[in-house]
Formats: sequence, C-alpha cells, structure tokens
Amino acid sequence: MRCEIVAIGTELLLGQITDTNSTYIAEQFSASGIDCHYQVRVGDNIARIVEALEVALGRAEAVIVCGGLGPTQDDLTREAIAQVMGVGLYRDDEALRLLVSVFAARNRTMTDNNLQQADVPIGATIIPQVMGTAPGLICPVGEKVIYAVPGVPDEMKEMLARAVLPDLLRRSGEVAVILSRTLRTWGLGESALAEVITPRVDALDAAGPGAPTIAFLASGIEGVKVRVTVKAESEKAANVRLDAEEAELRALIGEAVCGIDDETMEYAVGELLVAHGLTLGLAESFTGGILAARAVAVPGSSRWFTGGIVSYASAVKEELLGLSGPVVSVEAAAAMAAGVRELLHTDVGLSTTGVAGPDPQEGHEPGTAFAGLALPGAGAFGTQLRLFGGRNRVREMGTIAAYDLLRRTLLNL
Amino acid sequence: MRCEIVAIGTELLLGQITDTNSTYIAEQFSASGIDCHYQVRVGDNIARIVEALEVALGRAEAVIVCGGLGPTQDDLTREAIAQVMGVGLYRDDEALRLLVSVFAARNRTMTDNNLQQADVPIGATIIPQVMGTAPGLICPVGEKVIYAVPGVPDEMKEMLARAVLPDLLRRSGEVAVILSRTLRTWGLGESALAEVITPRVDALDAAGPGAPTIAFLASGIEGVKVRVTVKAESEKAANVRLDAEEAELRALIGEAVCGIDDETMEYAVGELLVAHGLTLGLAESFTGGILAARAVAVPGSSRWFTGGIVSYASAVKEELLGLSGPVVSVEAAAAMAAGVRELLHTDVGLSTTGVAGPDPQEGHEPGTAFAGLALPGAGAFGTQLRLFGGRNRVREMGTIAAYDLLRRTLLNL
Repeated sequence: MRCEIVAIGTELLLGQITDTNSTYIAEQFSASGIDCHYQVRVGDNIARIVEALEVALGRAEAVIVCGGLGPTQDDLTREAIAQVMGVGLYRDDEALRLLVSVFAARNRTMTDNNLQQADVPIGATIIPQVMGTAPGLICPVGEKVIYAVPGVPDEMKEMLARAVLPDLLRRSGEVAVILSRTLRTWGLGESALAEVITPRVDALDAAGPGAPTIAFLASGIEGVKVRVTVKAESEKAANVRLDAEEAELRALIGEAVCGIDDETMEYAVGELLVAHGLTLGLAESFTGGILAARAVAVPGSSRWFTGGIVSYASAVKEELLGLSGPVVSVEAAAAMAAGVRELLHTDVGLSTTGVAGPDPQEGHEPGTAFAGLALPGAGAFGTQLRLFGGRNRVREMGTIAAYDLLRRTLLNL
Repeated sequence: MRCEIVAIGTELLLGQITDTNSTYIAEQFSASGIDCHYQVRVGDNIARIVEALEVALGRAEAVIVCGGLGPTQDDLTREAIAQVMGVGLYRDDEALRLLVSVFAARNRTMTDNNLQQADVPIGATIIPQVMGTAPGLICPVGEKVIYAVPGVPDEMKEMLARAVLPDLLRRSGEVAVILSRTLRTWGLGESALAEVITPRVDALDAAGPGAPTIAFLASGIEGVKVRVTVKAESEKAANVRLDAEEAELRALIGEAVCGIDDETMEYAVGELLVAHGLTLGLAESFTGGILAARAVAVPGSSRWFTGGIVSYASAVKEELLGLSGPVVSVEAAAAMAAGVRELLHTDVGLSTTGVAGPDPQEGHEPGTAFAGLALPGAGAFGTQLRLFGGRNRVREMGTIAAYDLLRRTLLNL
C-alpha cells in the first residue's frame, strides 16, 4: 500500500514554518508498513493543489492531504479535492450540526465564513472533529482514496490515529503488524550507549531478516532513545517479541533507562514517589518553574506533587528558603532543598540553582548548575550538574538532570 | 523565476528526520523574490528521483536538489540528474583534485567509494566545496537548470549563498526584495480577526498586483498571527511599506496585537512592567509554573520578575497565600494575587486558579479557570478565563490568557 503526503500552505513554501506534520505522518506510516515514496508541499492555490493531488494519485493508491480545511478564503483543500473527484461540494447537515455544537459549547459566535467547514465533496465521508472545528474527509477517487486532515498538529495526529490509519490498513489488507517500543535513556551519550548495546545489535544482525531492529534517536533534552521495531503476525505476538527485546536491552543499559515510549522523566519520578508514599516540594532558581510545570503535566500528579517556590530573585531564596551566602553553590542547592521541604511540609525537597546565562553570576560561567535533594531522615545534599548550550537548553537540561538525581536516589532507596 | 525544491533521502520518507533544509531554502528564495510553488521529498531510489526531477522541471524554470551527493551507494543524485539531462557521467579532474586535497588536509585516508563524489554529468559545472567533501553541481537542461547541493545543512547553506542564489538571480534578472512582518494577536478567534481586517484586505485586493498581501496563521496557544508580505525594489523601501501596513492593521485590530515577529506575550508584559518600573510575583495553581518558566525564558527578565509560588496543593494556597474557602473562584484568584504580592514584596501579583482536568474539582468542569491581579494602590481583582481543550492546552492557554490580562491592564494604566 502506497500513500503519498501532500502538505498545504503558502507559509511552508515561504519557509515561514517547517513541515513537521509530514515527518509525523511519515513516521506513523513507516511503523504501520505503509510505503510513502513522495511527499509534496504546495501553497494555497487551487490549480496547484489539484495538480499536486493528481500527480500523487497517479503514483500511489492513497494520498493524505494536510491543511487547508479552515474557515478562511485561503482554505482550498475541500474545493481542490472535489475538482479531482470531478464532483461538486454540498453543505453536510451532520458536519454543520457538529460545527454549531462546537461553537455553542465554547460560547462563541459562529461567523458565516465558518460555514464552509461543513462543505463536503459529494461522495466523501467526514471524519468528525473532537478537538477543533474543521472535520476531516475520506474521499474515494475510483479505487483510490484521498484523506484530508487539518494542519493543526494535535488535530491531525488525533484524526490520523482514529480514522486514517485504520482505513488505510483495512484497504491494504496488511496482516503483518509492525510495532515499535522506545526505551528512553538519560545519562549516557549516544556513542556510549551504542557501545553498551553493541553485543545485542550484532546478535540481531546475525539472526538475519525478520529479527527485531534497533535504532537510536538522539533527542536533545529527552536524552537518547533506543527504538526496537518488530514485525509479527498479530499485535499480541509483536508485543511478546517487544517484551523479550526490552528485557535484553534493559539488562545491558541498566538504570539509565528512565521510561518507555511516552513516559517522561517526571512520570518515572512520580511513579517512584507514589511507590514510596512520598510527596515532593520544589525550589527552583535557574530552571524558573520548569520542574513544577513538568510535574503538574503528569496526570495524577496531585498524588505526589505539593507545590514549589520559584526563587528567581536572591531575596526570595533568603526570605522563604532561609538561604544565606552565595546562591550558585552545592551548599545553596542543599539548603534550598531543605528549606522548601520545611516550608511546604513535604517528604522530599528538590532544588536547582545555577547560571543559565548569557552572563556569568557570582563569577561562575553559564552552565554552572547544582541540584539539591532533601529526604526524610537523610538530611540534604547537593550535586553539580553537567550542562551546556544556550540559556533555554541549560534550563531544560537542568530540569531533567535534577529529576534524574531524584529518580536514581529513589531507585536505590 | 520559479524554482522548485527537491529533497532527497529515505530517512525523510520514514519520518526519521524533519526536512528543515527545504524550509531554509524556501525562506531564502522568498527573501530573494524567487517563487517556489512546490517542494518534493523523495527517497534514495534512482527512478523516483528522476521522476521527481522531471515533474519539477516541467513546472518551473529551475530546480534545486538537496542531498544524495555523498560517497555511499545510496547517493544517487548525480546519476539521476545525468539521466534527466540525457548525458553520461565523467570523473572530473578538478573535482578529484579538490577531493584528494580535502582528505590530505584532514590527514585522512580516502577510500575508493569517495571517488564517485568527483563524478559530474557531462555539460554540468561543479560548485567547489569549502566545508565538506562532495561538490555541488550546476546542470543546464535546455533553457532550464538543476542545482545540486549537499544535504548537510551547513554545506547546503554555504553553497546556496555563494553559488546558487547568485546564479538564480542572474538568470531571473530580478531585483525585487520580498519581506514579511508578523503581527501576533491574542483574544480574537481566527474568523473574528478576519472580519475585523476585511476592509483592509479588500482594499489591498482592489489595489491589484504589487500590493501587500495578508495571511492568517492560527497558532494555537500563540494566538492568531497576521502576516504582511510586501515586495519592493530595496530592503529599505520594503520596510517603509511594512511600517505603513502595520499601522493600518494596528488601527483595525487595536490592543489585541500583542507582539511583532518573535515577540512573545511574556516579552510584551516584561516590556510594559519595565516601562512602568514594576516587579512581578506569580501565584500559580493549575498552570503549575508555566507562567514562571515563560517569564525566566525572556532575556533580561530579572529586571521585572521576582519569583513565584506554585501552590498546587490547597494547603500551600492557605498557608503561604492566606487563602480560605473555595479555591476555584474569582475571589480565590484575587486573594492569591494579593497574597503573593505581599509574600514576595512585589509591585504586581498575578495568579491563576482553576480546573485543568481531566476530573472536575469543587463541582467545576475542566476548563473553569480564573486569573487574579493585584496592583499597587488598586487592590486585587479576579476574572474568569475562557479555556477549552485537554489538560495541557488548558494550562498553556490559561498562561497566555493570564499574561494578557496583565498586559491589557498595564496598557490602560
């Protein structure tokens, strides 16, 4: 089954935004065994969209079009598809009803230009929206098909998973299941990690075709990801193979594995805190609230996250956290952790202090940073973090490094 | 002058990397007045590369091919271009000499597979490398032209600036400069904004070709962006036209304009605080530190940002901020703002409280949220925010909405 990707938007052609939607769709296709031989980007121009769709349909059994479904005059995808299908557009009652209900639910007035989002090429079926306003479309063209999804990434991803991929897989009659699992790691560089798992990669290579494959993905502040992909006759069989491969890799990588698939570092920390029945308070200086924001983004974090102090100005560190003396030091990190633990009455206090840059502070260069940890009955300690890069990268890396300190400490409790 | 972009690489089709090269090239073309109507990505397959090049050459006067010039068997761009030109490849002496000298300068042994990088389609001229190993190519096809540049971003950028853009501009005889400016807005939906500026869009349409163009970009939590693009004979003249158009649009949109180009909402708030000589303290509940994290991400924010309290657990709201009674209410928002202003000794206190979801709280549905504001000598007040979407979207939207409350209040101080 071949499916080409057509991304719509003059802003893509002007280089004003990068087309990450196509990357995402391509990755999903690849994981599902759907071949994508071409990706095309075209502007908000009806004749050129039609031309792009016709070229793509000439080469593949299916095309997914991303973008151009909104309420403005620039949104021409519906009309272009209708031309390719050789049909007209009609205003779909069901699409209209859903559209009206979205605006009503948000207590917003629906202006007339929104109505075009309920227009549907004759013969097409709609993919109802669950997040935004414009529905997606499934448009048969002879034996082939054009899917239209919104350009808003979250809406696109949701429709792709719910409607497009299932329909594509049904059409392809593909029985093999391709599944991937990603092991997230933190604390090892890409080359160090590669060396650690070389024996396993060699063993899989020797096993020949059909064996699981392993790929690396250096993911910046998310560490290095190791992705295992297997092919099997059923989802159950694929998962059995993934489980076995995950166990092999965990034995090699050890506690640098901090999560699976979408599990973030802070998710791992939350699970460990809950397992130990502990609550967490945060004292943040150079990370400025990022640890807290990541904590509350974990569903159910109210079980373990109590709150935090963003002590950006030194006066806040002194007055609320009882700090005195230099703030960029291992002692300050420990004192902040102990201070916030006491102030918020939590079991654990975790802190960050350091220099995000661009200017030095207290004679320390940007990237100089410390995390502090206070635990029940164990006093407080601090440790230096090894960070590099610009201001925001130092902050993001410092956040993960501080959480990793807590994670490894809890693992060994 | 039209030039299409063809990016080569199976890794693009598998979604393993995002094609930022095309974004960069497109942006450079746009700034140079070169029209790009299509961008295509194709894998390391000779027949498909040839097909992509032929389709592109059928539509445009020029094509730039990015990638596939390296030393491996997967590097097929040279051969594909030769097929499109209907010629053979020869090993170019000059290219070979340069290649050998690069390896010699790096004290590296040149393996045989590197030799193919000196292969050139008959009739093409090379663009010598100054950074890597593979030279670029300028390949005439009748009156048209194919440029080939490496896929390594730095090498591509260097060759684009040094050889490709000058050659394209020489061919086009184009002297125009195209510049864009983006007005960021918050508080109006895309369709409401479209209606507000309809008179201006109509006037520009009536002015005919050469008039500035206006485009909308719904940018999720960044609000809706309005982009003006002008064409002029010089950068200075283009900026004069952009200034005039920005003034027209500001008159229509009013204070919903919160920034220009890369200026974020929190940047705008910071500028206003500095202008009024005010410091800010934050008390965050459902936003959980995102306001603070965004504040410290603004360069120079220590001039106005003192710190914040992430009062996730109700006990923290009560003990540190002096709150009593329900926490999901307009009164609680006002009390939190007043409380943090007092606790951190700042001029301004800004707060958020509400239900991010997925579960209701105090009988309120997710999305129910309030911001509070305490100002010098003006007491404290709260207001309800209109938020929707999932847990993280509610948090992100709530952050911007709270900052917008402060921004508008400071504007009218």
